[in-house]
Order: sequence, then C-alpha cells, then structure tokens
Amino acid sequence: MEFSSKLLENAVQEMAQLPGIGKRTALRLVLHLLKQPEEQTTHLAKALIDLKTEVKFCKKCHNISDFQICEICSNPNREKKMVCVVEDVRDVMAIENTSQYRGLYHVLGGKISPMDGIGPNQLNITTLIDKVKEGEVNEIIFALSSTMEGDTTNFYIYKQLENLTIKTSTIARGIGVGDELEYADEVTLGRSIVNRVPFENSLKN
Amino acid sequence: MEFSSKLLENAVQEMAQLPGIGKRTALRLVLHLLKQPEEQTTHLAKALIDLKTEVKFCKKCHNISDFQICEICSNPNREKKMVCVVEDVRDVMAIENTSQYRGLYHVLGGKISPMDGIGPNQLNITTLIDKVKEGEVNEIIFALSSTMEGDTTNFYIYKQLENLTIKTSTIARGIGVGDELEYADEVTLGRSIVNRVPFENSLKN
Ligand SMILES: [Zn+2]
Ligand SMILES: [Zn+2]
Repeated sequence: MEFSSKLLENAVQEMAQLPGIGKRTALRLVLHLLKQPEEQTTHLAKALIDLKTEVKFCKKCHNISDFQICEICSNPNREKKMVCVVEDVRDVMAIENTSQYRGLYHVLGGKISPMDGIGPNQLNITTLIDKVKEGEVNEIIFALSSTMEGDTTNFYIYKQLENLTIKTSTIARGIGVGDELEYADEVTLGRSIVNRVPFENSLKN
Repeated sequence: MEFSSKLLENAVQEMAQLPGIGKRTALRLVLHLLKQPEEQTTHLAKALIDLKTEVKFCKKCHNISDFQICEICSNPNREKKMVCVVEDVRDVMAIENTSQYRGLYHVLGGKISPMDGIGPNQLNITTLIDKVKEGEVNEIIFALSSTMEGDTTNFYIYKQLENLTIKTSTIARGIGVGDELEYADEVTLGRSIVNRVPFENSLKN
C-alpha cells in the first residue's frame, strides 16, 4: 500500500496491529474517523488510554474492575464458597448473562499453552490454590473451553489441589439447548450420552 | 452485555462506533490491548488524534496529504492536463498501485446519494469545474464505482461540463483479467461485449 500521507499511514499501521484487522479494514476504519466530528476520535483515544492506565484487576478474583474488589466479590448475596474458574472476563460476562450462577469467579487470564509460551506462572493459579488452602472455598467449577489447552490447564490445577479437601466439577458438555442432534459433532454427542443426567434434572430450567 | 467495569464498557462502546465492529469484536480488541504493553495503546491513540488534527487535504485535488499540495500534484513528471475523478483516497491508492496512470486526480469525497443526504454541494465538484473553466484540464476520466450513485454523480458533473471544451471518458468495465467468462455477471459481460476494444489494444499490457 502506497500512502499519500505519513499521518494516514501511521494511523493505519497502528490500527492494523489489532487482531483480525487487516490493512484494508484499518484504512476503512481510519478514513471513517476522518469523516466524523473530531470528538469521536478524541473520545475513542481517551477511552482506550483511560482503560489501559486506570483499569484495576480485582484483588480476589482478578476480574476487570473499577475497584480493588469487584462488584461480584463484594456482593453479600453471592455464594462465597463456590468458585468458577474461567479463562477471561468474557467468560464471566457470558456466565453472568445466564443468571444461573450465584457463586464467585476466579479469572486465570489465559490457558496453559506451551506453543504460545504461556506456562502456569503466567496465569493466576497460585492465588486460586491459596484460597483453597486458606479454607475460603469448598467447591471449584472448571469452566475453561474444551480444548487441549483448556484440558491441560484444568488438569494442572486439579493436581495442585490433590491433597486438599475440595469438591471439583466441570461444566456439562453436551448438545446445545435447541440444537438438532444430527448436526452435533461426534465428540460432543458422545459426551452428552456418557454424561447423561437424571431426567428430573432436565426439567429444572 | 453486563460489564464489570465502567472503563471497560466505555472503551468497548467507543470502539463499537466504528463501522463493521460489533460489541463482541470491540470487546475482543479492547481486551487484546489490555494484554499488550501500554505503548501499543498510547501509540494507537496518538496516531488517530494526530491524523485527525493535523491531516491536510491537497488544495488542488483534495487527496489526503501531509502538505498543502500533495506529492502527486507537485510531481513535475505527472501529466497535468489529465484528471481522474475518484470517490476517495482509496481509489487513488488503488490506481497508483497499477502504475498505469500518469495524470492527476480529483477526489470528490463521496458520491451524490440523496438517500444518505449527500448532494452535489457536499462534494468537491465546484473546484473541479473551476479547473476546467480555467483551462487547466483537457481530459477528465471518470473512475467512480459503477453504481446508481456513481452514475448519477458522473452524469451530474458531465452536465456541468456541457458547454466547456473538454474530453471526457470513463474507465473501461469488463471481465476482470484472468476471470472466467462463465462466472461473470450478465451486466458486466454485456458491457464488455458492447465496449469491445480493437484486438491490437488488448496486446498492450
Ligand atoms: Zn472479584
Ligand atoms: Zn493533490
């Protein structure tokens, strides 16, 4: 790409650093901003910088928060002894959206992935084990994605908990509610048969 | 979406104002920035603000430029009497990439589109007509996209030029080089037959 302006080239290059944003898309976005009132650009820039410089991570669960302790951890109506282990803040948001869970979370900040150079020490695992050792938790629910990295991470944490008194579970895998059986992949369908639940339970929701 | 942080929500909302970026994508992009070194966010923010506040539009052709007169208009080797009329800076970049054109450009800044509230007065049309009236141009090549809005804009300008001595042309439409005939749409195929060129001309490139 030959740019007629260094300023334009620079803006496109920075925008194209974002994942999934190619140069062409970056150019489209930047030219769009150029057509809008100046406030749109300044608001966007300020919002990104404010987030990056002022964001806090909850001291208890590592969730993104505007406070030292997030609103979930400080909510007196949550079940404090139950902790759902997730990869990132998006998983917290997804589970909160269901309104089905009343416990706390623990945000790992990623999954163990040797390929990407992410080992246990890059993740918030020690603080989770400490919580269990201090008797703050009596049930841990693993809710990582069902990939090799997710399974590795689950198993790593599980081994760390081995000599501690703690109940562990993983979220159920199965056919999505409303999905046609014939379109499900074999692994999911297989698991959903092996992990079948008493029929009465399926009437709950 | 329920956000655990106002700062996060604000950043996602600003990001999601960009065209084609939904809330989910915006969240993914913003969380990515949170994981990167602070410089990436500050560089992006600065590049966007610098562009918005310091960008210039060439006084002659309205192309985006870092100078009062762009590098194309001020290049002594360009054919000054030939002007290619385009919608925006991306079209200039696309044509420059072909290395087939040695004339100047005139960037309209859009197309006439009553549906979007864009009339001739929102576009850089007067300056184009003035150039012709002042005898600065002897050929105008229309290179707008071949849509109703593009055709309307071409025709509007063409009518303005009616009593002036000027050669006008539009870029050729036809089957893309290397494209299979059978996959071409009918309109394109039809035009490519009507506007057939002498065989010798097709040997040029
Ligand atoms: Zn928390
Ligand atoms: Zn120019």
